[in-house]
Amino acid sequence: MKKHNFSAGPSILPEFTKEKTAEAVMNFAGTGLSVMEVSHRSKEFVAVMEQARQLVKELLNVPEGYSVLFLQGGASLQFLMAPMNFLEKKAAYLNTGTWASKALKEAKTYVGEVLEVASSKDMNFNYIPKGYVVPDDVDYFHYTSNNTIFGTEIHEDPEVAVPMICDMSSDIFSRPVDVSKYDLIYAGAQKNLGPSGATLVIVKDAALGKVTRPIPTMLDYRIHIQNDSMFNTPGTVPVFGCLQTLLWLKELGGVEVIQKVNRQKADLLYAEIDRNKMFRSTVPDPADRSVMNVTFVMAPEFAEMEKAFGDFASSRGMVGLKGHRSVGGFRASIYNAMPLESVQALVDVMKEFEQQN
Amino acid sequence: MKKHNFSAGPSILPEFTKEKTAEAVMNFAGTGLSVMEVSHRSKEFVAVMEQARQLVKELLNVPEGYSVLFLQGGASLQFLMAPMNFLEKKAAYLNTGTWASKALKEAKTYVGEVLEVASSKDMNFNYIPKGYVVPDDVDYFHYTSNNTIFGTEIHEDPEVAVPMICDMSSDIFSRPVDVSKYDLIYAGAQKNLGPSGATLVIVKDAALGKVTRPIPTMLDYRIHIQNDSMFNTPGTVPVFGCLQTLLWLKELGGVEVIQKVNRQKADLLYAEIDRNKMFRSTVPDPADRSVMNVTFVMAPEFAEMEKAFGDFASSRGMVGLKGHRSVGGFRASIYNAMPLESVQALVDVMKEFEQQN
Repeated sequence: MKKHNFSAGPSILPEFTKEKTAEAVMNFAGTGLSVMEVSHRSKEFVAVMEQARQLVKELLNVPEGYSVLFLQGGASLQFLMAPMNFLEKKAAYLNTGTWASKALKEAKTYVGEVLEVASSKDMNFNYIPKGYVVPDDVDYFHYTSNNTIFGTEIHEDPEVAVPMICDMSSDIFSRPVDVSKYDLIYAGAQKNLGPSGATLVIVKDAALGKVTRPIPTMLDYRIHIQNDSMFNTPGTVPVFGCLQTLLWLKELGGVEVIQKVNRQKADLLYAEIDRNKMFRSTVPDPADRSVMNVTFVMAPEFAEMEKAFGDFASSRGMVGLKGHRSVGGFRASIYNAMPLESVQALVDVMKEFEQQN
Repeated sequence: MKKHNFSAGPSILPEFTKEKTAEAVMNFAGTGLSVMEVSHRSKEFVAVMEQARQLVKELLNVPEGYSVLFLQGGASLQFLMAPMNFLEKKAAYLNTGTWASKALKEAKTYVGEVLEVASSKDMNFNYIPKGYVVPDDVDYFHYTSNNTIFGTEIHEDPEVAVPMICDMSSDIFSRPVDVSKYDLIYAGAQKNLGPSGATLVIVKDAALGKVTRPIPTMLDYRIHIQNDSMFNTPGTVPVFGCLQTLLWLKELGGVEVIQKVNRQKADLLYAEIDRNKMFRSTVPDPADRSVMNVTFVMAPEFAEMEKAFGDFASSRGMVGLKGHRSVGGFRASIYNAMPLESVQALVDVMKEFEQQN
């Protein structure tokens, strides 16, 4: 039976990425050696790193004066690195969920003064705050573009008067971004990019070096820039996997093309959730709904059938549909690599479940 | 032509590790999904993490009261994490090479007071200092057991009166270790353990929590212990690869067995270096010579033939033999996965080169 992988992350990757990686684990770039056992300083692996960095620039239309890095430690380490490198007096954070809260807390507890400009915690993060004010005197405004757990997303670059820092872990490469508005963009690889173990960083060179605190070596973006992302040994398989997905995305036509496909998949699924009397979206305002993570629960009158639907969906090959414990219900993560057919298969399962009950 | 992979790291891995990883990249644990695209919280991947941690305990005979973690960021991040978690008043460091110097510098520059108890920098780190004194009042004694670049190794656990912290990146699992003498052992995976992107940490639980500084979340060993190495998303492929190598090592008989094989390989190669009039070891005292990284240069009267030997060895399938720029000449890294036959092949090439010249 065909599996439909709706996991939130690590999550579905293109067949191309899987096949090329499996091949390179046995024989990398014709060396007769595995990508796991060649020096990261070999010309073959340096080419992988350089091509991956170059493709990120190309696909996201990164302007001159920005550096692209592949680091380790995921967004969780960026929660610390971002303020270490950018927070001098005060920073503004928008709190839209678990990861946004963690980023805010890390900066506030260990680095410096933080202003929470708005929070949707009052409604279990089921909406994106509007009308908040970002003061002009903060070092930066930090937000999380997509909230994997709560199924909300900020679909367009906010308009603020200060430089922005954004955690784009779960929607990077799903749509165009105006990188020039940001001092820093970071993203764990394990959603739209590749296997876990790589963290993508896009940083504005001229914005660095303005804080007065000493920054430990591994936490200093300048060190990684000076060393072309090779200050220490990168995860060679994770970076190789990211390159394959970037090649796949380029071949497909880039972020403008995938954005249309993503919109189509999301529309199909949200339409069924809104139509089907057994289910309900957890995000009331359609404008706030995530194109990447579609969260839904049983309608109140069918609440006791949650397990039954989960089992039914599993029996039809649906994988990773269980919602995060903070929300309950279900979450269909429909990242870039998810084909429309899998979303259709889920919709069919929802319809069939409705008919049976 | 068969390749003999003498790379210093990432470096040769068992065929078993490569085959099992390639297989899991296409179909992991019978899920029909890739190990790159399943949730790290799936029961299949949790089992990988748990088995890997358990095998580390078994193979190194780790006593009760220690935690085993798989983190990210390599030894370079441990250079910061170790003092952050353990340095309260003062720490003692032994300086035996590039990596030992970096560990010392990171602790001293960003964390606290550091005493360099001895250094072999005066002779370009070609020996292990002896007779140094570690004061009783330091928080810990830090050393690097094997110096990958300079080809020296501390073959037995030092006898000091304070807790020890050791960077065992390049000789862990090559021989037994008395873990009970250490508060902390850390090692980048990419030599004897697996692909790059995983960092092994063995830490004494009761030794933690004694420093007064605030420790950022991702740098706090206690956070990772509380979360069973899953506080953030681990590199799933790197950890999977490590597990395969641990399984391979267990099947082979463990660290006592591999220690004998390693000694045999090293003896064979050092004997040829000492015998062959064209080459010279860079480490004069045989007691200080590394069993993992065998560094050698052309004898002075054959100095101009360095490139010729490099080319000759390459033409016979030898890969990764070029020495680090700080030492020059050649370096044969003969980690656990390197078969005796490959060392014999190198010895044959050295003999043949001697006969031809």
